[in-house]
Amino acid sequence: MLAYTNLDRTRAWTDLARSRPYDITRLTADRVESMKTPLAAGLTLSWAAAPVDEPVLEVLADLATEQQLIDKYKALAGGAVMNTGEDRLVLHHLLRGELEDPVIWEGRNQRAFYREQQERFTRFSEAVLAGREKGATGRPFTTVVQIGIGGSDLGPRALYLALAEWARAQGITPRMEARFISNVDPDDAAAVLADIDFESTLFILVSKSGTTQETLTNEQFVTELAERRAPGLDIRRHTVAVTSETSPLASGGGYRESFFIDDYIGGRYSATSAVGGVILSLAFGPAVFQRILDGAHEADRAALNTDVRTNASLLDALIGLYQRNVLGMAATAVLPYSQALSRFPAHLQQLDMESNGKRVNREGEPLAYETGPIVFGEPGTNGQHSFYQLLHQGTTIVPLQFIGFLESQQGQDTEFEGSTSQVKLNANLAAQIVAFAMGRSHTNPNKYFPGGRPSTLLVGRQLTPEALGALLAHYENKVMFQGLAWNLNSFDQEGVQLGKVLTTELLTGAAGEELKAYARLLGIG
Amino acid sequence: MLAYTNLDRTRAWTDLARSRPYDITRLTADRVESMKTPLAAGLTLSWAAAPVDEPVLEVLADLATEQQLIDKYKALAGGAVMNTGEDRLVLHHLLRGELEDPVIWEGRNQRAFYREQQERFTRFSEAVLAGREKGATGRPFTTVVQIGIGGSDLGPRALYLALAEWARAQGITPRMEARFISNVDPDDAAAVLADIDFESTLFILVSKSGTTQETLTNEQFVTELAERRAPGLDIRRHTVAVTSETSPLASGGGYRESFFIDDYIGGRYSATSAVGGVILSLAFGPAVFQRILDGAHEADRAALNTDVRTNASLLDALIGLYQRNVLGMAATAVLPYSQALSRFPAHLQQLDMESNGKRVNREGEPLAYETGPIVFGEPGTNGQHSFYQLLHQGTTIVPLQFIGFLESQQGQDTEFEGSTSQVKLNANLAAQIVAFAMGRSHTNPNKYFPGGRPSTLLVGRQLTPEALGALLAHYENKVMFQGLAWNLNSFDQEGVQLGKVLTTELLTGAAGEELKAYARLLGIG
Repeated sequence: MLAYTNLDRTRAWTDLARSRPYDITRLTADRVESMKTPLAAGLTLSWAAAPVDEPVLEVLADLATEQQLIDKYKALAGGAVMNTGEDRLVLHHLLRGELEDPVIWEGRNQRAFYREQQERFTRFSEAVLAGREKGATGRPFTTVVQIGIGGSDLGPRALYLALAEWARAQGITPRMEARFISNVDPDDAAAVLADIDFESTLFILVSKSGTTQETLTNEQFVTELAERRAPGLDIRRHTVAVTSETSPLASGGGYRESFFIDDYIGGRYSATSAVGGVILSLAFGPAVFQRILDGAHEADRAALNTDVRTNASLLDALIGLYQRNVLGMAATAVLPYSQALSRFPAHLQQLDMESNGKRVNREGEPLAYETGPIVFGEPGTNGQHSFYQLLHQGTTIVPLQFIGFLESQQGQDTEFEGSTSQVKLNANLAAQIVAFAMGRSHTNPNKYFPGGRPSTLLVGRQLTPEALGALLAHYENKVMFQGLAWNLNSFDQEGVQLGKVLTTELLTGAAGEELKAYARLLGIG
Repeated sequence: MLAYTNLDRTRAWTDLARSRPYDITRLTADRVESMKTPLAAGLTLSWAAAPVDEPVLEVLADLATEQQLIDKYKALAGGAVMNTGEDRLVLHHLLRGELEDPVIWEGRNQRAFYREQQERFTRFSEAVLAGREKGATGRPFTTVVQIGIGGSDLGPRALYLALAEWARAQGITPRMEARFISNVDPDDAAAVLADIDFESTLFILVSKSGTTQETLTNEQFVTELAERRAPGLDIRRHTVAVTSETSPLASGGGYRESFFIDDYIGGRYSATSAVGGVILSLAFGPAVFQRILDGAHEADRAALNTDVRTNASLLDALIGLYQRNVLGMAATAVLPYSQALSRFPAHLQQLDMESNGKRVNREGEPLAYETGPIVFGEPGTNGQHSFYQLLHQGTTIVPLQFIGFLESQQGQDTEFEGSTSQVKLNANLAAQIVAFAMGRSHTNPNKYFPGGRPSTLLVGRQLTPEALGALLAHYENKVMFQGLAWNLNSFDQEGVQLGKVLTTELLTGAAGEELKAYARLLGIG
């Protein structure tokens, strides 16, 4: 029997308040050797530099038990209505595989439905890549442009960038060049399309509801530009839709194909659905996309483990919660030491802040404790020459989430002053973890480092499709566990609605005076 | 006579603590109409949605007077040693023009020196663009690749992206395609160079000290790859250096040209020096770069104004300080409603967090109040579909810095459902400001918006080179005023040193056991 309790009404909450964080300025090699938890796809979570020791960990484990985090995850994976506000299931795990008994909902086997869609876009992408599906004028498709925003953009884009150079090194190139249009700013579409050859370009229109203002506007932008640049070309024959079966795009759009998701796949959790799957299958081939799913499924299964010490996603979630609620740290930085993950922090920023940036619990009652943190980040070593100054010596402590790999993706390297780039990269990563944790004393206060800046590290052999899938799922599951511990609904996003309402009021002339005044200031009054 | 006092020892500090913030849920059209302060280059700061009213503003004005912010700015511009920790002048304003009497330092007229360098790279870029300066095999240069990290990367890259599509619309293209290599991760250089034609590529090696590990390693990477891909090509003849006159790169490198900066131009303040000037002059022509400088100089001059109500940069600085120190808000988001500014937040992240993420005052004494905030951001409307959920309904209030323009850069647009993309973009922007400030009540707590989320808006007609220069200088001056108010040194970065020291210890075998343990975990032990 599942019981839903606010965090501050648990016994563990009281124990947490009494707990003493581990003093990471005393970090030892022994901690580094022992405080490692396997995740999946060869990835390991190192938590030696987190402010937890055995007593703290025991309280966190008690909290996980008391809040029934694994049981609730199982319920979610098994088809419980976990998106309470919208009265919906939460089924993105099923995109990768089944974790519990089959989910049959309204007479439909949901796993079979998602598999069917994957098989459909697998066949479609194979036909495009083989040149059997061609443009309206008989030219093969060489470029694919995704039109979507938010979850229809950030996740797929981050995954594409993460594997583009890996694919090149593997000799599978990117098989089609992928581009993305997201912003309603017309300069976005104009820039992306400036040098596009419409006759050899396939567009993917992604909107679950089929009503996303930005995406429909950009579709219109593409259509008008195509009319000017490729007169007579039937752009609908160059467009596939990814949408829900009941959306306006699903029927009557005249698109070449439509691939379906449903209301149980949230936008920010949709990268492993057709939302990411069509473009990634076209760019890298469907087998590579399947490898992403395999890595994600392995991480999903690992997250079922009831022992917090051997469940990396649960452990990472609890460490984050401890830093947020007990130590009072309001932000967290994601710092991948991998240029390929350059947009992965932007995806995690949406995933985390849109899921857990909430002030009410799952029943809609105001919460009296902090919830989701601010998330930001850039790749290392770039960030070291930028915002790390504040992280080391600022007045606000920001917990850090490092990601690293033993090997580069491309294997090209150079030796300079006795070490390769890859060795320098990882030497910097190791050095930063220790510098943040332990600090260093100095007689000049300007050169003094207080330390005590906690971090975790996810480390893998190489950023392969499996490792990428595991990373993606790890953060999804981490965010899920935190939301469950906070007793909130991580799967709606009511906070994005008011802006839409006011925009519509303004565009239809129904706005208040202060909004009209801003509109005048912005030249649209 | 200038006096340097910690913020918490000023009279205004006591008055600030007693002040009551303006309740922005009561935002009125009258505030929107009246609370506007011109910046430069047609840009205006709207601060109607900031939590300040006339009484708060008076205390902030008193603080500006008491901390002598304008006098200290004049002293800085006039050549005072404001980088106390490193015993250096701070002269980036002189790159744009003189604000005070000529700065003569060690017998040199500094403005004349910076002008001379600008004239040198202006002539060089004109010769390259005219085809008079050619590659070693006689091919014209068509691509330029900057190798640099931190301030040698983020600012120039943000400015290039900000104007690339504007230039296309103006018919001045980008005249050379610009790319950037920054990360020591070998996958970065490998990706950027994958399809490069070395014979028609010019490299710009940027390192003030001439010793930046990442940059020298990437130079070596380029050299080795050129040897394989273009055997016999003298890559030094394809490389210009931007460095200080005393650096190892300045002499003996055998580079085609060297352009100079000096110790009085901090990395994060160097975008308007040769660090940004060479690549921007090559990409857009020197006249466009001069227009950036003109806009920046106009903003620099406007920041001399002693009346806080008519000095947008000073006012923005004081509003930020009020939010940080009085209202206790630890972060701020930069939200440009302009896709062209996609990397501008990353530049500001460095500018602000590296300048003011400090825990000691200018004499090195620990401070007892908060200093620089966490800075992050993405373009709107993209962010609306991502992290805005937390901004609207999260438990942590994040003050927002919006940027908007009346017109798009390219003038391409489409009408859909009764409005253009540009109108939708700005309608969304206006709606968000009002939604964040005023919120909206609802009987369902999940759909309730508390409001009280403060913001400012910088609005201009179009993102031109002048507007971009003014934006850049505005934030530099805002950060400077805040640093002066906090009585800290915004111009050093001791916090980046420990990581370098530990990296060197590791690479030379002198590391501690815990660092060696991390190195083993990362495969380099």
